[in-house]
Amino acid sequence: MEGEPTRIMLAVNQSTIKGYPHASISSSRAFEWTLQKIVRSNTSGFKFLFLHVQVPDEDGFDDVDSIFASPDDFKDLKQRDNARGLQLLEFFVNRCHEIGVACEAWLKKGDPTEVICLEVKRVQPDFLVVGSRGIGRFKRVFVGTVSEFCAKHAECPVITVKRTVDETPEDQVED
Amino acid sequence: MEGEPTRIMLAVNQSTIKGYPHASISSSRAFEWTLQKIVRSNTSGFKFLFLHVQVPDEDGFDDVDSIFASPDDFKDLKQRDNARGLQLLEFFVNRCHEIGVACEAWLKKGDPTEVICLEVKRVQPDFLVVGSRGIGRFKRVFVGTVSEFCAKHAECPVITVKRTVDETPEDQVED
Repeated sequence: MEGEPTRIMLAVNQSTIKGYPHASISSSRAFEWTLQKIVRSNTSGFKFLFLHVQVPDEDGFDDVDSIFASPDDFKDLKQRDNARGLQLLEFFVNRCHEIGVACEAWLKKGDPTEVICLEVKRVQPDFLVVGSRGIGRFKRVFVGTVSEFCAKHAECPVITVKRTVDETPEDQVED
Repeated sequence: MEGEPTRIMLAVNQSTIKGYPHASISSSRAFEWTLQKIVRSNTSGFKFLFLHVQVPDEDGFDDVDSIFASPDDFKDLKQRDNARGLQLLEFFVNRCHEIGVACEAWLKKGDPTEVICLEVKRVQPDFLVVGSRGIGRFKRVFVGTVSEFCAKHAECPVITVKRTVDETPEDQVED
């Protein structure tokens, strides 16, 4: 029953509290849950495919300490953002390496919901894991629901893993 | 990393084509997918919890060959339905036994969506697997969507497994 490992795509993002390169609570939780509940001791039976989608920062003013004086400054900013995204992925790749599970990781730019679904189509994982803040119906309207969209539209089985109650920050929109 | 096995609840139902005790294409598919992609060779790491929810047949006239002459006839019918439900579960329990994966199976009566969510609350599996016919947006309005409801409301991670294209009958509502 072994053969090719089961390819698990995991969509990961940065923490809204600590910023780059820290992983969001829901990404870390989804990853640890998958290790504990699915991979378990069968480390050779699975391969993680980590995808981080960076939302293009249209005005580039998310950092107050940035001063833009030439086109190169914007280029530097892009490179720095890229580097931060890579650091985020590094966290997951390092964990896999420690445990001995195969993995691949890559960055994409764009709208997370769209890009995740396109990447599922391209890469054809066995299933997709997405973390979810798991917040209530009312708040969800405002914060968007990448997990819900993917569960509906991705062309593979999707498992949505919510944060645990004790991991959830006081302001549930934070992650 | 081993310890307690991962408890996978699987909601199973009968075939709309072949009737009891045959499993629906989507139930069988969800089960086989879980074995292949998640359990793999780690048979001691998982335990299946099979739940079959029987919708109460209000008038009892689904079988044309039934003749009701006394209250006992209805009782017999109920027992027969029960027996058929058990035969359906037997199929899955036998498969687990062959492979060497632990399992439990039980019947409940009621509205499948409600009962599945209540049973998740009571039994607290690590995750729930539901098969889905995976038919288009238009038809789904009519045939109901147990899988969609559970994915949204069950208090545990939920993975929805669709039938493959070549397993899908010509009339996609059939299962």
